Amino acid sequence: MGKTLVEKVFEAKLRDVPFPGTHVLNLDVVMCHEITTPVAIADLEWRKKDRVFNNTKIKAVIDHVTPAKDSKSAMQGKILRDWADRHNIRDFFDIGQNGVCHALFPEKGFIRPGYTVIMGDSHTCTHGAFGAFSCGVGTTDLEVGILKGVCAFRKPETILVEISGTLGNRVYAKDIMLEIIKKLTVNGATDHVIEFRGEVVDNFSMEERMTLTNMAIEAGGTSGICMPDEKTVDYLWEFIAEEYEHDRSRAIEDFKKWWSDSDASYAQVVKIDASAVEPCATYGYKPDHVDNLRNFTDARVDQVYIGSCTNGRLSDLRIAAEVTKGHRLARGTRGIVSPATPKIYREALKEGLIDIFLDAGYLVSNPTCGACLGMSNGVLAEGEVAAATTNRNFNGRMGKGGMVHLMSPASAAAAGITGKLSDPRDIKEI
Amino acid sequence: MGKTLVEKVFEAKLRDVPFPGTHVLNLDVVMCHEITTPVAIADLEWRKKDRVFNNTKIKAVIDHVTPAKDSKSAMQGKILRDWADRHNIRDFFDIGQNGVCHALFPEKGFIRPGYTVIMGDSHTCTHGAFGAFSCGVGTTDLEVGILKGVCAFRKPETILVEISGTLGNRVYAKDIMLEIIKKLTVNGATDHVIEFRGEVVDNFSMEERMTLTNMAIEAGGTSGICMPDEKTVDYLWEFIAEEYEHDRSRAIEDFKKWWSDSDASYAQVVKIDASAVEPCATYGYKPDHVDNLRNFTDARVDQVYIGSCTNGRLSDLRIAAEVTKGHRLARGTRGIVSPATPKIYREALKEGLIDIFLDAGYLVSNPTCGACLGMSNGVLAEGEVAAATTNRNFNGRMGKGGMVHLMSPASAAAAGITGKLSDPRDIKEI
Repeated sequence: MGKTLVEKVFEAKLRDVPFPGTHVLNLDVVMCHEITTPVAIADLEWRKKDRVFNNTKIKAVIDHVTPAKDSKSAMQGKILRDWADRHNIRDFFDIGQNGVCHALFPEKGFIRPGYTVIMGDSHTCTHGAFGAFSCGVGTTDLEVGILKGVCAFRKPETILVEISGTLGNRVYAKDIMLEIIKKLTVNGATDHVIEFRGEVVDNFSMEERMTLTNMAIEAGGTSGICMPDEKTVDYLWEFIAEEYEHDRSRAIEDFKKWWSDSDASYAQVVKIDASAVEPCATYGYKPDHVDNLRNFTDARVDQVYIGSCTNGRLSDLRIAAEVTKGHRLARGTRGIVSPATPKIYREALKEGLIDIFLDAGYLVSNPTCGACLGMSNGVLAEGEVAAATTNRNFNGRMGKGGMVHLMSPASAAAAGITGKLSDPRDIKEI
Repeated sequence: MGKTLVEKVFEAKLRDVPFPGTHVLNLDVVMCHEITTPVAIADLEWRKKDRVFNNTKIKAVIDHVTPAKDSKSAMQGKILRDWADRHNIRDFFDIGQNGVCHALFPEKGFIRPGYTVIMGDSHTCTHGAFGAFSCGVGTTDLEVGILKGVCAFRKPETILVEISGTLGNRVYAKDIMLEIIKKLTVNGATDHVIEFRGEVVDNFSMEERMTLTNMAIEAGGTSGICMPDEKTVDYLWEFIAEEYEHDRSRAIEDFKKWWSDSDASYAQVVKIDASAVEPCATYGYKPDHVDNLRNFTDARVDQVYIGSCTNGRLSDLRIAAEVTKGHRLARGTRGIVSPATPKIYREALKEGLIDIFLDAGYLVSNPTCGACLGMSNGVLAEGEVAAATTNRNFNGRMGKGGMVHLMSPASAAAAGITGKLSDPRDIKEI
C-alpha cells in the first residue's frame, strides 16, 4: 500500500520509536521567535544546558512585538538576540531585517520538501506548502528541539482536501480556505494533517498555497501540506539551483519523491468545488463561522487590517491595492497595512502599492505580527470591529472586546472603502 | 519702555487678572493628544460639562501610541476619537493621518504669530518658533482650556539667547540647542521664556527653529520663542496668502508687530558663539549633561533612533540620509527611522531617503512619538544604549534601565555606522 507525503517524511526522518505510537523525528529546521523561545532559553540555562544542536538549523526572528512596545517585550527581544549571538546563530533577524516569521523564513529559502520543521507558534503549519512536515509545538518540545534537534510526534493521519473548479471573480485562496474550515469545522482536522490537492492547488502560487496551509490549524489540523512541484522549484530556485546543477527539471523530478502515492490511504476525503465559493468572511468567534459577504448587511467596520502570515505577502498587497486604487477609506474607518517582510515592503514601494494605500488614507506599519494577535501596532478597543486578512477570530484576539472578521485582502480592502463588510465584487474600479 | 514678544501676546490676549500676578488669557488653539486628554474628557463628563469652547480651535491627534499597542492605549484613542466625533472637531487626526503633534500641527498651518496655544504635553513650547506663546499644561488647565478657551498664567520673564557666528561642518540646530541647555542648565530657564535671536536664528529654517524652541522645556523654560519673519511667512504662506491678499511683503510687515521692541527688558541675556560649537551629545540622565562627541570613546550604541518632535522632520531625515548613504548599520546596532508625519514620510519616499535607510538596514516605522518616551515602537531593554535625535534623556526615558544619548540626526546616523558614539565629521562620504 502507498504512503502519504507525511508518512514518507516520518519514515525518512525517524530516529526512534521509544514507545508504540511515539515517533521521534530528526529535525531539519527549528524556528524561534521572541515570544515563546525566551522561556525555553531560560529553562536551558537553568538546567545548565545552554547549547543548541546545530546553529545553522536554527532560525530566529523578533517579529511579534517589534519594535518593542515596553520593557518586557524589549527584554524578550534582548534574550533572543543575546542567545543568537552567544550561539552564533547567523540566521537571526533583528529590527530592520525582521518580518513575520512564516513569511520571512520561506522567503529566505529555509524550507525544502521533506523537511521536518517545528516552532513555538501555531501557524508553523504554513511551511507545509513546500511539502514539509511543519508544525507548531509547545515550549517543552521547542526546548528539546533546540538542544537535541529532535521532536516526538504521534504519526498523524491525513485528510485529503481536493479542490476542483475555477475561482470566480474576486475569490481567492483565503475564501477557499474559509470554506474548507467551515466544512471541516474548527476541530474537524484535530491530530490530522490536511493535504491540499486538485487543479486549483496546482494552479495556485506558493503564496496562495501558504494561505491554505497557514490556516490548517484553524480546523484543528497538526499541519497543512501541498505536493512540491514546479511552482515550489521556481520559488526556491535561487537557493537550490546549484544543488540541482541548474537543471530545473531535475529538481521537479526529485521533488516528486515526496508526493503521496496514488494508493495512499486517507482518514477522510473532502471535495471542494471552488467554482461555488463566493467572497466570504467569518462572523462570531470561531474560524468556522463563515458566511458569504453578500449576507452581511450594514456590519460596520472600525479598522481594516491587511497583513499577517496568512495574507501579508506581495500578492496579497497587490490584490488589496487593486481594489483600493482611486478610492479613499470611508469616514470613521481606519486602515493599517503591514507588509509581512522588509522585502515585501520594498517591492510594494517599487510597484507603487504603498502609494495607493497612502493615497487612500492607510497607515503603513513596519513588518510585524503585532495587530493580528492583539499584541501591538493595531489593538482594537472594546466594542470595535475589524475586517482583517488574518487567521484567527477568537474572542478578544485583536484586543479585548473587539470583533474580528477574517477575509481575503480584496474583501478587507472593500470594507475599507465602504466602511462596512462588503462583497468586493460590488466595488467599482476607478 | 519696550515690550517683549511674550509681553505683547499677554497684552493682546488678556481676558482677566483675577488676582495680582495671575493673567487669564484667551486661547487661540487648544491641542489634544490621546495620553493626557482622555482624563480631562472624563472629568468634564463627570461634571456634566462635556462641551468644547470652540470646535474649530481644538486640534486633536492620536500620536503617542499608534497604532494602539494594547487594550488600554486602544481605549485612550477611542475616547479621543469619540469625543472629537461628538463635538465635530474636524481637525482630528486618526491612524493614517496622524503624526507627532508638534510636527503635524505646524505642518497643517494651525499656528500664527501672536497666538496663545496650550496642550497637555511638555514640548508644546515647539510652536513658539512661529512667534506664538505656546506651552505645555497639566490636565486641569487643559480641561479649563477645552471648556472655556482660557488659561491662567503667571506672566513669564524672558531670557534672551543671542546666537551669532557660523555653523561648522556637521553642526546643526540640535548641537546649538544642546550647548544652550548646557549653559543654562536644566532649570536655568524655569518660569521664563527663552527668546532665540541673532544671525544664526535668522538664517535657520522654520524646522531648525522648531528644534530650538522644542527643547526650551529641557532648560526648564515655559516656552521658547522666535521672531516671526519672512521664513515664517513662507512656511505659512499656503494658509495665509488669501488673508494678506497674496502680498507676501504685507504679511512680513504685519508679523513684525509681534517682535520684541529693541528696548524691551530681559531677565538675562545669554550669548552663544555658534562657530565654537562642535557636534555634541548628552551623557548621563539630564539634558544639560552635554559633551562634544569627540570626547566619547568606545561608547557602544545598541539602537539608533531618528525621529520625534525635535528631529523627525524632512530636513532631519535628509541630514541623516546624507550621512548614512552608502553605509550599513554596524553589526549589533539596530536602527529605527520614524518620519514625524505622513507628509514627511511621503516626501522622504519621493526623495529616496527611505531607500537609503532601508539599504542601510534601518526599520522604517509609521509616524509616532512611541519610542522617544519609551511608550511603544522602540523601547530599550535594561542596559541598552540609544543614540537618539529626541529631546529628553531622563533615566528610563526610552525604557527602564536604558540610556539615551541625545544628538543631531547627523550624529545619530554616524553612531549607526560605527556602532558607537561618533563625531559625524569622521564619517566618510561614499
